[in-house]
Amino acid sequence: MIVLFTDFGLTGPYTGQVKAVLQREAPGVPVIDLFADAPAGNPKAAAYLLAAYSAWFEAGMVFLCVVDPGVGGARAPVILDADGRLFVGPGNGLFEIVQRRARHARISEITWRPAALSATFHGRDLFAPVAARLARGEPAPADQRDASWSRQPDWPDDLAEIVYVDHYGNAMTGLRAALLGLDVQLAIGGRMLERARIFADRAPGDAFWYENSNGLAEVAVNRGRADRVLGLAIGSAVSIVSGGNAA
Amino acid sequence: MIVLFTDFGLTGPYTGQVKAVLQREAPGVPVIDLFADAPAGNPKAAAYLLAAYSAWFEAGMVFLCVVDPGVGGARAPVILDADGRLFVGPGNGLFEIVQRRARHARISEITWRPAALSATFHGRDLFAPVAARLARGEPAPADQRDASWSRQPDWPDDLAEIVYVDHYGNAMTGLRAALLGLDVQLAIGGRMLERARIFADRAPGDAFWYENSNGLAEVAVNRGRADRVLGLAIGSAVSIVSGGNAA
Amino acid sequence: MIVLFTDFGLTGPYTGQVKAVLQREAPGVPVIDLFADAPAGNPKAAAYLLAAYSAWFEAGMVFLCVVDPGVGGARAPVILDADGRLFVGPGNGLFEIVQRRARHARISEITWRPAALSATFHGRDLFAPVAARLARGEPAPADQRDASWSRQPDWPDDLAEIVYVDHYGNAMTGLRAALLGLDVQLAIGGRMLERARIFADRAPGDAFWYENSNGLAEVAVNRGRADRVLGLAIGSAVSIVSGGNAA
Repeated sequence: MIVLFTDFGLTGPYTGQVKAVLQREAPGVPVIDLFADAPAGNPKAAAYLLAAYSAWFEAGMVFLCVVDPGVGGARAPVILDADGRLFVGPGNGLFEIVQRRARHARISEITWRPAALSATFHGRDLFAPVAARLARGEPAPADQRDASWSRQPDWPDDLAEIVYVDHYGNAMTGLRAALLGLDVQLAIGGRMLERARIFADRAPGDAFWYENSNGLAEVAVNRGRADRVLGLAIGSAVSIVSGGNAA
Repeated sequence: MIVLFTDFGLTGPYTGQVKAVLQREAPGVPVIDLFADAPAGNPKAAAYLLAAYSAWFEAGMVFLCVVDPGVGGARAPVILDADGRLFVGPGNGLFEIVQRRARHARISEITWRPAALSATFHGRDLFAPVAARLARGEPAPADQRDASWSRQPDWPDDLAEIVYVDHYGNAMTGLRAALLGLDVQLAIGGRMLERARIFADRAPGDAFWYENSNGLAEVAVNRGRADRVLGLAIGSAVSIVSGGNAA
Repeated sequence: MIVLFTDFGLTGPYTGQVKAVLQREAPGVPVIDLFADAPAGNPKAAAYLLAAYSAWFEAGMVFLCVVDPGVGGARAPVILDADGRLFVGPGNGLFEIVQRRARHARISEITWRPAALSATFHGRDLFAPVAARLARGEPAPADQRDASWSRQPDWPDDLAEIVYVDHYGNAMTGLRAALLGLDVQLAIGGRMLERARIFADRAPGDAFWYENSNGLAEVAVNRGRADRVLGLAIGSAVSIVSGGNAA
């Protein structure tokens, strides 16, 4: 299975052309749209989102990932093998958190180039053919690099920011909920939010945070939009406040 | 074939994760996105939309339906067999109108639970595996209930409200056009609208109603957006005015 | 492979119902969403977009195309064979530019009608079954017409207007970049824009034009939204200014 994680957006011809390449190069391999609206042009926020959501999939999956503001510039194209999940995309930090959390990681630089490579659409021309080749079980057209190659050592293990706002207005942080205590409060948008288990535990209109279905701490308002109520967007800062301190 | 009817929205990872489960559990079964933007958190409006659009499909289809504001709360997970179409989703009224219009209906409560059930994403963890099992032709992991179980007797047979606004700004009502006379007018947004057969029958800018391609009375403006011209949204009330009275 | 090019929008049941028909009538044939948001109700702008994007695909593809403001009115349903690519849709100019640029073109009028034809959804009821038949390799249920039939001779070979605005706010023109010199400037939104090769060649915030990955001249702002910065929308006029004149 090939999983797409991009900031192409839902509109326009980009995802369709990538799928046409995948269909031609790896016919019959199912393609799943995971995110087409990953944080646009923001590989750092996207890295935390990708780490949380790719972990839900089994080993053997191929992830075709494009959040690539520097397309056509200097960043290298890479393949990361993280515990048997294969990630294909730009070497701009997008795979930093996946790599850091993997028990066994191996990173390579893609050396293959297509006969025709557009200046601005490497997702279609370069990454999709490589992902198709991996999905067919063929060897990666890439040279292995050292584990320290193309890393972002300054990025934290968890990101205390909003990394995604969904259709319902819920705002995901880059924090893993399992690392936060049950009495931890999150300070965000000028408010202190307590943890809840499910939406129905709170009165309509109440803001809270909870562990979402992929393990991230997510800010929500029961029957409301957290993004509007609290004024949140990708990049909004969050502070972790220990419940013990507040008590 | 598995048909998706949800309020997950077009963005975000929800539909993708559901499709990944379906692909894993029922490989090769085609999955069709019917609505990803059913009325959010509004099972009542969604019930009339689902009844109109599911009727267009043949028997044998499996409909995976999620409009579920009470996820994690008390509502039961259900399977409805309505004239050979199988509906999987929350028992919150979403299937009320399908059930009411079916000649032969059988409702069951899903008793199976997955090893890991998130508090907030039963579409992925519970309903998708059940839909996949039905699509494979396996028996439903559910206990049959009485026809009176989990019903909404107070809901009308047709809903005189806007239940969906589409991309063009056309506003669907919950009224079946076949039950309305050719001279019936609809009062909505402070205007009286006559029935037309097609858009080209009206001058550009004219508002009217017509029978849409799935049998619902739909409010439209030729070469314009009815939602903006008339100030319509999901929930806007409609009144039926007999043409005889107005004449 | 069947490629969809429509103005159905991303929301609502339209694309899903078309895909259900294709799946039933041509099971196993992959369906690719190229554009679901082609210029709404604007076959002229859509014609230039379709010509640019369909050229990227190989011969043998079937394109199911619906930008059809006159549905239910007088326009004929057509099949165009352009160098082995097959286009199915309304005869309203949507295929004019594809036909004009083809070396070998043959146009036919679809004579087949389904048993049930809705007044407003020919994409589902008429064009999808015909596209499925072509994808199965069966003969077109259509009568060949003269090359001069149903043409738009007044439309230019290239359209000096914005024909599409994408998710990033980039604005595509209907101009083929290969026909414009490297020193050509485009005047648009009160600004003169120079040509760049890639985004990274320009400072953040700079507006420019470049050849996009399908050969159209496209207006962009590095790390910004050209549509907002320059006030662009579908239909905005562009002027071509020779660099020699400006020097």
